[in-house]
Parts: sequence; structure tokens; C-alpha cells
Amino acid sequence: MTLDDVHALAKRLLQAQGFGARHAQAIANTVTAAERDECRHHGLFRIPFYVNALRAGQASGDAEPTLSVLAPGVLKVDAHYGFSPLALEVADAPLAKLASETGIAAMAVNNALNVAALWPEVERLGERGLVAFAFVAASPYVAPAGGTRPLYGTNPMAFAWPRANHPPVVFDQASSASARGEIQVRLRDGRQLEEGWAVGPDGQPTIDPATALAGAQLPFGGVKGAAIAMMVELLAGPLVGDLLSYEAGEKDVANTGAPCGGELIIAIDPVRCMANGDRAAQLAHGEQLFSKILEQPGTRLPSDRRYEARKRTVQHGVTVPASLYETLQELSTGTYTGKRNAYEGDDALRAALAAQGA
Amino acid sequence: MTLDDVHALAKRLLQAQGFGARHAQAIANTVTAAERDECRHHGLFRIPFYVNALRAGQASGDAEPTLSVLAPGVLKVDAHYGFSPLALEVADAPLAKLASETGIAAMAVNNALNVAALWPEVERLGERGLVAFAFVAASPYVAPAGGTRPLYGTNPMAFAWPRANHPPVVFDQASSASARGEIQVRLRDGRQLEEGWAVGPDGQPTIDPATALAGAQLPFGGVKGAAIAMMVELLAGPLVGDLLSYEAGEKDVANTGAPCGGELIIAIDPVRCMANGDRAAQLAHGEQLFSKILEQPGTRLPSDRRYEARKRTVQHGVTVPASLYETLQELSTGTYTGKRNAYEGDDALRAALAAQGA
Repeated sequence: MTLDDVHALAKRLLQAQGFGARHAQAIANTVTAAERDECRHHGLFRIPFYVNALRAGQASGDAEPTLSVLAPGVLKVDAHYGFSPLALEVADAPLAKLASETGIAAMAVNNALNVAALWPEVERLGERGLVAFAFVAASPYVAPAGGTRPLYGTNPMAFAWPRANHPPVVFDQASSASARGEIQVRLRDGRQLEEGWAVGPDGQPTIDPATALAGAQLPFGGVKGAAIAMMVELLAGPLVGDLLSYEAGEKDVANTGAPCGGELIIAIDPVRCMANGDRAAQLAHGEQLFSKILEQPGTRLPSDRRYEARKRTVQHGVTVPASLYETLQELSTGTYTGKRNAYEGDDALRAALAAQGA
Repeated sequence: MTLDDVHALAKRLLQAQGFGARHAQAIANTVTAAERDECRHHGLFRIPFYVNALRAGQASGDAEPTLSVLAPGVLKVDAHYGFSPLALEVADAPLAKLASETGIAAMAVNNALNVAALWPEVERLGERGLVAFAFVAASPYVAPAGGTRPLYGTNPMAFAWPRANHPPVVFDQASSASARGEIQVRLRDGRQLEEGWAVGPDGQPTIDPATALAGAQLPFGGVKGAAIAMMVELLAGPLVGDLLSYEAGEKDVANTGAPCGGELIIAIDPVRCMANGDRAAQLAHGEQLFSKILEQPGTRLPSDRRYEARKRTVQHGVTVPASLYETLQELSTGTYTGKRNAYEGDDALRAALAAQGA
């Protein structure tokens, strides 16, 4: 499929399932960007999450996000229980404009269902020449430092640094040692987990996927990663007046796996952070670091793999497994019977994902 | 020694070695706070770092930090090649005031020699009811992801979350898997390192301390910790128009171990991040998370160990090893012969540190 085909299919089926045109467009944008960058967990595979939350009555398909000013440096976008992509598109230009005026600005995102990656919002800000951070919480899967029961979400944080004549350097990483989906894929394949990924319900370390899914995932990097997870939880929850992961989990009564909550985005205009700032010189200074990284064999910049995929897929399109394609066709023609939680329950989709090597 | 004794000794000897009263006071404040919290690496043990950099002509003992406004949300404090504690004290109230007005504000710290912990500046902001971040780079010791040669500093980041009737929750953590001092202590003690801390000059993983010190430390948590290290490097360097770690290393020609560079501090007023914010309710929401963490056996909050030590030492004082005390007496009476790099070279201090179990 060409990327245009992906977008058209995604949009058509989202609208067929009840999403309004603006939400369908925004979700199709983020799904297509994920396919383009070969982030398949967030591509077409993810469509049933959106659909299931809408069917369960937990997501709005036509809520119009509203922007407001909370303070001279802080904006708010209320998604009104719609999915986050539209709210984030609406928030992008106003946040960038404010950051370029004040030097640093924040966007509180509220009441947004979020199952997308974080890199699109920071990459957009990076493309505008800004440094950006994003923080989002999720359903409770991860134990705190020293603990053994789920409390934090997989709590990703994302960061973007702008470059001249090149997409920004971006990372978008969970605070958990592994993706939950990776544990699920290994369960199906009968493969063991890596050490340090999870504990079982008895609190003991486990490399058995089923035991891990019944227990708790662990943060990456021990106590330090757990501190990052806690920070993300505070920033995406209490700071912006939205839910903690365990509260979002309790609220997802239909178990759609599409938690509703907050997100914090911070944008900084680098040229406003030094006296007589010279944007070109400042970006060149960043490039010095990147050169020093890349002159070491074995290194790459965090986002380079995505950008390489992007070059390929823009030219050659993407390959979608037949079983996934069929499911999506059913969704677009209204013949999909669905599962409450596609990620946990839909074997066809899981098989499709595995076939893609994700 | 009582904490007052510690402060008086530190201040006296810093002045005897040529620091002006204001710098001596600020450095004594941060050294005493470290002793109070039993962070001995940053306590009296650290005094020779300050002294050596002054003796080497790389630090100013009397530079008065200057504040300026870079943008409506961004301030700058130029330390003019003095040590950071005075600049950070000067920066504290203006940053807090601006953040409470704008909701979010940043402080670019420039030309500061930094060998102190980061938690004092974020804890102060947290005590004022603000959420705070700090990022600082350092001398090049740590390899980038996939690489094997030193490039990043140990690049700590610190975070504070305010609490009612309790000191803030704070973490202050290096991006490296271990402290450099810990590797040095194990070298002296003939103990091996943990797996994953370092590679040797040949790029191969090593648990031998000498091989590690000749090679490179590794980031904590693999690729994700390396991404944090890169982010800190960009924020404390190019963003605020200051040095990258490898540049700071090149500039430290006398090898004092007291790198000069930048720091970024971000302060957010939580009550400005939600509509009709209610500060008490917002803090209570954070407490909900902390309760959920602490109800799991084996957990603690990141800063609790320091606060427990603080209760003890305020009441009972601190114990300083005789060899360290003697060195400090020599420094205060001008009879200290010194070493170019106390941390690398002074066996008495290393022994003192080990005796403290640090």
C-alpha cells in the first residue's frame, strides 16, 4: 500500500465506525505517520483500539478540542474525551507561537484518550525549531521501585532537538523495561522474557510471559528508571489536573486499553535561552555533539532508524499483512464483529503483528 | 561535629584559601547541606575540589553572579567562572517569582564551575511550591549508546515535586550506571565492578576498575539511559549556549575535576497548570500517588533516605573521619600541600571517603 492508501483506508474505516471527519483525519494522520516510520504498533494495527473505545462509549468521535490560556506561559487543550491526535494537532501551532514569544511554554492536555506514540507532537515542535518534551501516563502495568504490584503506566517521555536541514533528533521511550506488547507476543510464541522485565503475582522475578502479565512490569534501569516513571506520572496527572495511571485504569471499565488522561508538553525556543542567540550557531553546536556520537562505530541517533524507514516507505510504500488488511476491510464495511480489547483478545491481529516482526 | 561546626569550618578554610565571603558562604551552605543529608561525596570531602580549581586559576573566588532577562519566560545567571552555589542562590528567588507569574520559567546558568549535587536547587524551588527540573553536564566519562569511548558527562538530572507540610519529593540522578567515585573506591579496595558499568579501552565490557577508568563508563539502563544523557548534554550545553562535556573536559587543562559549563533549571507552578487550580487539592493528588507507592512493601520515595538522615544529623551532628578532618585543618591554616586533583590523587581523602562507607 502507498502511504496515501494507508491514510485513505484508515480514514474511511474510522468514519464508517462512527468517528467524525476531523477525528478520522487526525487519527489517520498519526496512524499513517507510524506506518511510514515502520512503528507498526502504532500503525494500522492500532485502529481497533480506537474503534473499540468508541463502541464501548468511552471515547467521543466528534468532540471538538477547546483551547484556553491558563497562565502567560501555559495553555490548555481539553480533548473532551476524544482521542488525542486531533487535540494535539489543534495545540501545536498555539504552543509553538507562545514558546517563541516567551522562550518556554507548556501545554496541559486534558481528558484525552491516548493510544498513539508521543514522537509526532515533539517532532512537529522540533520541525518548528523548538526543543520539546512530552510526558503521558497510561494504564497501570509497572511496579514502583522496590515494589511488586502494578501502579505506574508504561509512562513514556519524548524529547526533540531541532536540526537544520534534517528532521529533529527525537526519542520517545517508555519508562518500563519492555513494551507490554512484546511480552504478549512472546507469550503467544512460547518465548521467555529477558531478565529484569517483570515480576510475577508473588513478587518474584519472572521470565515467564503469562506470569509477568499477571504480575507487574518493571521500570527500565532500576531505581533511576522508576524515578523517571514517577516523574512522568506526576507531570501527566496531578500537575495538569488529570488522572494517575491507576485512576485511568479504574475508569476504563470496558477494558478497551485506551486510557483517558492528561499529557504535559513543554516547548522551548533555544534562541531565547542565550544572550544574543544565533540560531544557526546554536544548531551547529548541537551538530558537534551528534558528529562526536556518530564518529564512534556502533552508534546512531535515537530517531535515525525511523527516518531511514521513512525514506523507504515514502518511495516504496508499506506492506500490510493479509489478515490485518482483511480485518480493516471488515471494519470499513461494518462487518467487523470486534473484540472488547483487540490487543489482548484478537488473535488475528496478534498474528498479523507477529508476521510484521513487531 | 554539629552542622554549625561543619559550616564554620568549611567557610573558614574556603576563605583562608582565597574565596571571598559570599562564595565561601554559599559553598559552605551546599557542603553543610550535603553533610546534613549524609551525601558525603558532596560534603566536606568535596572542599579540595573547590580549592584546587581556585589554586589552578580556573575558578574565580569572588566573581559576583549577574542576572539578566533573556525572554519573558527565561532568565540567565552568569557565574563568571565562579562556582555554582552562589549563582544558584542568586537565581533562586527570581526564577521562582517568574514561574509563579508565567506558570513556567527557565533559568540558563552559564560559566559556572560545578562539583555540587543538583538537589539543593530543585529542593529550594520545591519548598516554594514549585515543580522543578535541573540538568547539568560535566567532564567526559560516559560512552554514547552503542559506543565505547567517553563523550557525555555523568550528566545528572534532578526533579522536585512539592508537598504540603513535608520537604519535596526529589530525585537527583546521574545518567551513568555508576558514580565515578564508586569505581575509584573499588579500584583501591581491589573489588570488581558490577556488569554493565563500563567498557575498557578496547571497547569490551569490563568489571576491572582500572580498565574501566582507562575506558568509558556506560549509561544507566542501556539505550534509554543514553538518550537521557544525550538530552541532558543538549540542555546544559547548546541550549543555554554553554559547553558540551568534552569541551569542558578540554578546558579543564589543570585537570581539577571541576568542569565549567552551563545548567538549565525549569520551574513550573502547578496551580497555573490547571483551570481553577486548587493548590491543596493538587498536592493531595500527588500524595495519593505517594501513598500508593508506599503501601507496597519494599518501597520508599526517592528523597526519603536523605530526609531521614537530615533528622538524625540536625539532632546529633555528623562524624567526620580524622584523616579528612586533618586535611581540612591544614587547608584552613594554609599548610595543605594539595594535589592537582584531589579526587584522583589524594589517598588520604580517598581513605577518608571509604571510611565513611561512601
